[in-house]
Amino acid sequence: MPEPTGLSYRAAGVDLDVADRAKEALKALVAQTRDQHTLSELGLFGGLYAVPGGYEAPVLVSSADGVGTKLKLAFLSGRHDTVGRDLVNHCVNDILVQGAIPLFFLDYLAAGRLEEGVVTEVVRGIAEACLANGCALLGGETAEMPDFYAPGEYDLAGFIVGIVERSRMLDGSRVRTGDTLIGLASSGLHTNGYSLARKIVFEAMGLQVRDEMPELGMTVAEALLAVHRSYLPALKPLLQEDRIRALAHITGGGIPGNLPRVLGNGLGARVRLDSWEVPPLFRILQRGGGVSLDEMFRVFNMGVGMIVITAPQEAEPTLRELTAAGEKAWILGEVLEGKGVELT
Amino acid sequence: MPEPTGLSYRAAGVDLDVADRAKEALKALVAQTRDQHTLSELGLFGGLYAVPGGYEAPVLVSSADGVGTKLKLAFLSGRHDTVGRDLVNHCVNDILVQGAIPLFFLDYLAAGRLEEGVVTEVVRGIAEACLANGCALLGGETAEMPDFYAPGEYDLAGFIVGIVERSRMLDGSRVRTGDTLIGLASSGLHTNGYSLARKIVFEAMGLQVRDEMPELGMTVAEALLAVHRSYLPALKPLLQEDRIRALAHITGGGIPGNLPRVLGNGLGARVRLDSWEVPPLFRILQRGGGVSLDEMFRVFNMGVGMIVITAPQEAEPTLRELTAAGEKAWILGEVLEGKGVELT
Repeated sequence: MPEPTGLSYRAAGVDLDVADRAKEALKALVAQTRDQHTLSELGLFGGLYAVPGGYEAPVLVSSADGVGTKLKLAFLSGRHDTVGRDLVNHCVNDILVQGAIPLFFLDYLAAGRLEEGVVTEVVRGIAEACLANGCALLGGETAEMPDFYAPGEYDLAGFIVGIVERSRMLDGSRVRTGDTLIGLASSGLHTNGYSLARKIVFEAMGLQVRDEMPELGMTVAEALLAVHRSYLPALKPLLQEDRIRALAHITGGGIPGNLPRVLGNGLGARVRLDSWEVPPLFRILQRGGGVSLDEMFRVFNMGVGMIVITAPQEAEPTLRELTAAGEKAWILGEVLEGKGVELT
Repeated sequence: MPEPTGLSYRAAGVDLDVADRAKEALKALVAQTRDQHTLSELGLFGGLYAVPGGYEAPVLVSSADGVGTKLKLAFLSGRHDTVGRDLVNHCVNDILVQGAIPLFFLDYLAAGRLEEGVVTEVVRGIAEACLANGCALLGGETAEMPDFYAPGEYDLAGFIVGIVERSRMLDGSRVRTGDTLIGLASSGLHTNGYSLARKIVFEAMGLQVRDEMPELGMTVAEALLAVHRSYLPALKPLLQEDRIRALAHITGGGIPGNLPRVLGNGLGARVRLDSWEVPPLFRILQRGGGVSLDEMFRVFNMGVGMIVITAPQEAEPTLRELTAAGEKAWILGEVLEGKGVELT
């Protein structure tokens, strides 16, 4: 029977073979992240992961996140191997806040047209970060969606599942008035505030992605694509010693938006602005955009990517341990009766 | 101190308050899906879910998926309460194929500008489908990404985690030559082939979304937005009785692309084209686009949304049971030595 010379899926903008080839390239990368609990290879409908033994009352902790408009920097600079690391590290930090250690990760990558090289670079970043965090890259979805994304653009989201012993779960209930806030340095904007940052840098300051960023000795791309850090290596030992009362990952909403989420009812916090030095990048953005300090704190992490809450007597030894492990860390303030965050 | 009248996050296109209000509306919907294992409310960094007891060797089964360009139909028709159900049901079916029952679900919703009403409708669909599938809606990410999505458009992806006893896991190893393939009816295109379907309907056939679809007695929107079915209610009893050797969810790639994924090495299948009646919608699309039959089968489910593989002696009783439960089901063919799918 002669084949009608009509429409095909390829003519409609979807090339299933490209998706398959990208997945093949991806398979080898992903294999490195597998551990003894990973029971499936890529290509099955669902990823299989055995619940690890040794827990009395295991609780799964999961989170979904995207990279947001930081992706625009990747598009502009043609650099696609960092956004996957941003995504994984962001997700790892989000479940760390509940005391959980990552088990596995899945990604969602959608583009108008899948470019094999770009897909492979993105997945390389994801796989490398999974490996670094001891997390299996168990699966994902790579979607070709014509007419959805501008040429050369894509969206990237991720989903993580971790585990914590129920009695070790951090849920705010351990926090007491007078507890100490310890800030850990961020590596840059992490993955928040990019819509504002791009407006400031590209419109108000009139810079381009390859231009030198004033005062920083690096390009706009380098400054704004700095990878979102994972705090797992720094905090895992402290979690294992059960020395942490709460953790706050400073993401969208900044310190005032995120710190209250992990304090119990009836508790607030005081953060002293002179307790750490806001990195130059944030001051440049503030000046460049004429942004109010309040707004800066509500949008950006301002140099503090994670806040550790400890009992007052644990604060100094914890700070020393973190510093000895190479962390930039500061005592920022304390937990108060009340509500919200006082920036003083 | 007077506030500088400079740039703000709102001026940059991100309104954090809208996102917060949408999440509040979402909270009430989501609460309905919680079960006794759900330990967290929305708003924490990570969702908390206790691993259910009663398993000797529990295996987590997870999947990530998107709705794909079916979303364009939602945009065109202004109907946003079905795509969430498509997404959840698709994910439920994907892990069902490994024998797993869903535990929890997380969504990722990204838009250029979050419209409260639209977000609420999308989440309503997600929450309703989670409820219907006994699955907790544990969390998600709602991202406002200016300059990413066209006005009124969004992308939607989901992540599911389910559980199966390791000895009951379906991984292809139970399938034998001579096993019987039973097809279960789909409810329409499900979530695959929409780039081609839209090209056929809107370009080749010149229809608009509110036009009557010829022969079907419904509009284009009704025909193309028909909700992707969940096969969990039909198949859960069979899984509990351990009567299934394998399942294939017929998604992108159609029967030839999906059936081989669940057969063991060295096995193929024969599917007889006269064993079921391809629904009129697929014939209309084939004619409308002048699409080859091969291409139709590679892109669309052609009326078969799930294939159940049973031992030959189990086929007739299984078919009777499925039919008695209200399923449209047919014996499609059998497993053969070899490779790939023969459509005869």
